[in-house]
Amino acid sequence: MRNVAVRNIERTDLSIVDALGELGVATVHEAQGRTGLMRTQMRPIYSGARVAGNAVTALAHPGDNWMLHVVVELAQPGDIVVVALSSPNTDGMFGDLLATSYKAHGIRALVIDAGCRDVRDLTEMQFPVWSRAISAKGTVKETVGSANVPVVCAGALVAPGDVIVADDDGVVVVPRAGAERTLEAARAREANEVDKRERLAAGEPGLDMYDMRAPLAEAGLVYVDTLNEPPD
Amino acid sequence: MRNVAVRNIERTDLSIVDALGELGVATVHEAQGRTGLMRTQMRPIYSGARVAGNAVTALAHPGDNWMLHVVVELAQPGDIVVVALSSPNTDGMFGDLLATSYKAHGIRALVIDAGCRDVRDLTEMQFPVWSRAISAKGTVKETVGSANVPVVCAGALVAPGDVIVADDDGVVVVPRAGAERTLEAARAREANEVDKRERLAAGEPGLDMYDMRAPLAEAGLVYVDTLNEPPD
Amino acid sequence: MRNVAVRNIERTDLSIVDALGELGVATVHEAQGRTGLMRTQMRPIYSGARVAGNAVTALAHPGDNWMLHVVVELAQPGDIVVVALSSPNTDGMFGDLLATSYKAHGIRALVIDAGCRDVRDLTEMQFPVWSRAISAKGTVKETVGSANVPVVCAGALVAPGDVIVADDDGVVVVPRAGAERTLEAARAREANEVDKRERLAAGEPGLDMYDMRAPLAEAGLVYVDTLNEPPD
Amino acid sequence: MRNVAVRNIERTDLSIVDALGELGVATVHEAQGRTGLMRTQMRPIYSGARVAGNAVTALAHPGDNWMLHVVVELAQPGDIVVVALSSPNTDGMFGDLLATSYKAHGIRALVIDAGCRDVRDLTEMQFPVWSRAISAKGTVKETVGSANVPVVCAGALVAPGDVIVADDDGVVVVPRAGAERTLEAARAREANEVDKRERLAAGEPGLDMYDMRAPLAEAGLVYVDTLNEPPD
Amino acid sequence: MRNVAVRNIERTDLSIVDALGELGVATVHEAQGRTGLMRTQMRPIYSGARVAGNAVTALAHPGDNWMLHVVVELAQPGDIVVVALSSPNTDGMFGDLLATSYKAHGIRALVIDAGCRDVRDLTEMQFPVWSRAISAKGTVKETVGSANVPVVCAGALVAPGDVIVADDDGVVVVPRAGAERTLEAARAREANEVDKRERLAAGEPGLDMYDMRAPLAEAGLVYVDTLNEPPD
Amino acid sequence: MRNVAVRNIERTDLSIVDALGELGVATVHEAQGRTGLMRTQMRPIYSGARVAGNAVTALAHPGDNWMLHVVVELAQPGDIVVVALSSPNTDGMFGDLLATSYKAHGIRALVIDAGCRDVRDLTEMQFPVWSRAISAKGTVKETVGSANVPVVCAGALVAPGDVIVADDDGVVVVPRAGAERTLEAARAREANEVDKRERLAAGEPGLDMYDMRAPLAEAGLVYVDTLNEPPD
Repeated sequence: MRNVAVRNIERTDLSIVDALGELGVATVHEAQGRTGLMRTQMRPIYSGARVAGNAVTALAHPGDNWMLHVVVELAQPGDIVVVALSSPNTDGMFGDLLATSYKAHGIRALVIDAGCRDVRDLTEMQFPVWSRAISAKGTVKETVGSANVPVVCAGALVAPGDVIVADDDGVVVVPRAGAERTLEAARAREANEVDKRERLAAGEPGLDMYDMRAPLAEAGLVYVDTLNEPPD
Repeated sequence: MRNVAVRNIERTDLSIVDALGELGVATVHEAQGRTGLMRTQMRPIYSGARVAGNAVTALAHPGDNWMLHVVVELAQPGDIVVVALSSPNTDGMFGDLLATSYKAHGIRALVIDAGCRDVRDLTEMQFPVWSRAISAKGTVKETVGSANVPVVCAGALVAPGDVIVADDDGVVVVPRAGAERTLEAARAREANEVDKRERLAAGEPGLDMYDMRAPLAEAGLVYVDTLNEPPD
Repeated sequence: MRNVAVRNIERTDLSIVDALGELGVATVHEAQGRTGLMRTQMRPIYSGARVAGNAVTALAHPGDNWMLHVVVELAQPGDIVVVALSSPNTDGMFGDLLATSYKAHGIRALVIDAGCRDVRDLTEMQFPVWSRAISAKGTVKETVGSANVPVVCAGALVAPGDVIVADDDGVVVVPRAGAERTLEAARAREANEVDKRERLAAGEPGLDMYDMRAPLAEAGLVYVDTLNEPPD
Repeated sequence: MRNVAVRNIERTDLSIVDALGELGVATVHEAQGRTGLMRTQMRPIYSGARVAGNAVTALAHPGDNWMLHVVVELAQPGDIVVVALSSPNTDGMFGDLLATSYKAHGIRALVIDAGCRDVRDLTEMQFPVWSRAISAKGTVKETVGSANVPVVCAGALVAPGDVIVADDDGVVVVPRAGAERTLEAARAREANEVDKRERLAAGEPGLDMYDMRAPLAEAGLVYVDTLNEPPD
Repeated sequence: MRNVAVRNIERTDLSIVDALGELGVATVHEAQGRTGLMRTQMRPIYSGARVAGNAVTALAHPGDNWMLHVVVELAQPGDIVVVALSSPNTDGMFGDLLATSYKAHGIRALVIDAGCRDVRDLTEMQFPVWSRAISAKGTVKETVGSANVPVVCAGALVAPGDVIVADDDGVVVVPRAGAERTLEAARAREANEVDKRERLAAGEPGLDMYDMRAPLAEAGLVYVDTLNEPPD
Repeated sequence: MRNVAVRNIERTDLSIVDALGELGVATVHEAQGRTGLMRTQMRPIYSGARVAGNAVTALAHPGDNWMLHVVVELAQPGDIVVVALSSPNTDGMFGDLLATSYKAHGIRALVIDAGCRDVRDLTEMQFPVWSRAISAKGTVKETVGSANVPVVCAGALVAPGDVIVADDDGVVVVPRAGAERTLEAARAREANEVDKRERLAAGEPGLDMYDMRAPLAEAGLVYVDTLNEPPD
């Protein structure tokens, strides 16, 4: 029962998904306790995109993009396709034809721990992709993997229906069960930052604003006037 | 007879070269059987360039850009200089002065498995470079290599007079002998994609359009309704 | 006496700093004998920035950005914060809040051998950062390092008050003691290039302009008409 | 409820664990459908070790080895400690003192997606470690992570009580629920190989033994006598 | 006509091959003008092996080891199988069963720009392999490549029948046409080193033995007594 | 005054050097506050060597080993040659001839941020080398660097006369000025570990021995019986 394509998955409500998307990767990642981030090799093919969606997953094999076709039918508008690889690979598994199909089915983005091509066309279409490489290397359709099973993508565990948030800072996974709680924490965090930003912009030292002076001293930081002078 | 500079090489007709350039790296790479692609570390210094030309080659040594000066005289308008290194190196072997000279001689681009600098100037000049690094590191002119000999650049074999096509997806080498056949295949491939793109944009599932359902089943893919449900 | 924050450092005169900044990384690096360049992994988070400033340094530990708060008070307008890490790390130690604070204190840029986040905001604010990674990964404030001590950042030794010049080509360090001499050499170098650029633009072969033909022959380069023909 | 240490986990029976260990990583990995393998950066600190055990897991932060102390009490004889990192790190989180403690508690090995030190001592003690780096870099004990929660280590999902098999070929994870079935499949696989090995040693072509000739032809392989000769 | 297996290739005489093997990689590489070396990622799976043979080549695709079976019949005693990949891959394409078959056919070694597994068994069998990775990752047999065509392996061009020399220093390719001349040059080089080794062992400064003092001064090296003292 | 070779340097007393060598890299690195460690890419060419010496330094350029000849005369018995590169390079700058010369002059080891070759011979001679690569790639003698100047090698600052300690765990630099104090601290550390090792070997939990239970709780670690159970 290894190579399965799962038709029905539970998704996160799109109102939660979209709200997480507006908050962005860094805020969401902090709000859920600094977890769920993909490795930094995952970069957007163009700057400025920020997107969120429900994960539809694929486990593919190096040099074979068959599963990227399979997931189209499993997706709904508002989904993001997440592709994990069974071993490291940079082949260009996705290009403008697949992007055309994905767009037609309402898929919002692709996150793939492999390569992507036709990036000029994808940029014109404004179909955002986060990948570990840009590569024209073509692929075959010979070996099946699985779809809508839990996968490890770029170091992060992704279950189908988890929320994916992606922007210029990278890609973060929000488990479905905790999505609402994470959204609340992220909103609280952001609200809290407005005041801080103003105070910092006015020149207030962060050491004061964050009450860091005593902890710094306790942790062993010693201020000296010059490098060779003995500490007080 | 190791360190030679070869004056006369056979080139590919520029009408073929230019036609390949318009088709782009991914299409050309597929059209010649998924061969000839350089490794993905070769990235353009700015986005949006697409260029093709006849290869004039140089084999240089780490930290030494002398051969990049030698090739200027060997080049003709329509050429692309391809620089291979005798061992991995990221030094900035090419900058705005050399680019000025290359432009004056009608050289269309540089492909170098080392570093490049003055990228702001090169971007303003719109002289495209594909390199494995951006580096201000200066180089010497002490050790000669060879020019217009076959070289291995970023994992691809390049003979002088081969066609180089480069764009945002990377760099592909088309051997001179097969350039015309590859052009035909690439045109056929592109013509074939127009119809597919329309059908996919209209929402037709790729699994149907490509007749993939039976092969998928034969390859072992099993559809299930939920992950834990046994397959049918 | 290990974890110190040094209050007083000697800086380079801003007129020298700014003049070096206008000349750019490649010219300055050459002018001081091809030294002082950071490794090529240090990339700007957006294109087109060119900046120079006096180095205020921090030595931080992986996953901990406390020292990035400490340096704010040690900095003056015209400074650039340089952060070295005690072991390789890509965590996102710097974001829009810290950038707001840095800007309010006149800090011109950040150079960090770790990660950076909120790059969309930083780009809008036009606060330039050179980093080895973009990462949303959050950090703690538990372990102190040092500030305004000599550090090794991305392979280059940086002392407080050294001049940092950074642009699209990377980051170079100019030791304070030699800054004025380097500025003179850089200006001479640039003046010298104007004439060369014109001659090269007019098509003069570099081999002639640089008198390279005899040295090339002496170094063993042999011209042949075709690859298989024996040399003259 | 983020930073937890879980006291009670369900383990796999040691008779199954030990039997899997005797079969080795490659056989076990194949027997469970080519899944569960950690990335190839995980290398043993000395050659020749082969070990299996129940996973006790830790999620640690870069530069902080506190959780490696916490897991000692959670472990039983027959366990293997598996350490995942919240972001990439190579610090030397484990050395001969911890190894002494681990040995005293019957822990069989360490698998860590970070660094290890005192490798000479560990080799003498014959305490096997698979790590991504060897590094003397010291760590702090400031930030807690979690223990005995599911982690992603070197690209593989590891739940507490899963079976870890490690040898010179790398590290594979066998989910507890499927351990017995995987053991059967692995034994069948190995039994099957004895006969094959003999036939191959006797010189029987693999193409015949595996009946590959027809599939190869169908897949498009053409035999020619010389490279330039047209195919039959 | 892309996917071909070529039956007949011209080989280099085994007396030349074996003599090159005795001289080792570094000497042979120098003797042919510092060319033909594979990238340093190619490492032996165990120390101490030194081998030479005629290249039988395969071009394989990521995750697919079918061509490693095809080459067995194309090989003769004294051959070394060289496997290039169409894109970077570390899967374990070769293990003890294939090694048993290779040994039975007189194949002396494997050089593969991908992964290898069963390294403990291969070490016991003393079947030497140079690979870019050790990985238990299994592969499929779905996509054909080519055999006995020129390939680029780890940055070096290899034609069938070229001589491969491999030892602890790496792997070098000697083109068949130049093998005899390279052997002579390598022998001359080695003979020349005997005397040098004795003189150096007796403490003679290399600067004198190689007459380097004048060239060093000419190249600009200045001796000073202390760092801050001005040069003479 | 850039390319200098400095004849006279102040060294650390060999009794201190040798005592540091006996303590090993990890202990010395900890004793001086976790500083001075080179990056983990610096690996010994064979296992089991442990050595210490006074640093004689060279700054070399990629592909050029001239300065490795220059340092021979500047060295004394008890020295270790440390070679930094002006940009990343893996060429084989050092082999058995240079090792013969180094040995004859009492040089104890080589630490080089580039490549090394003839590793089989060097292993037989038991001349230890720590390098970032093993490579047969030959080098030229065309460009001079400097000798006995401060260098940055593999991320660590090395001044001539600093103590280098190297073993299987890597390479650490002990500044000359602090060598004696570091030795005392290292001895104290080691003495302190004897008792700890015995207690840990007897099974005493490290959490007790190090009094970690209260700090762990304070830092937020919560013990639970099972993963899904709420914390106490």
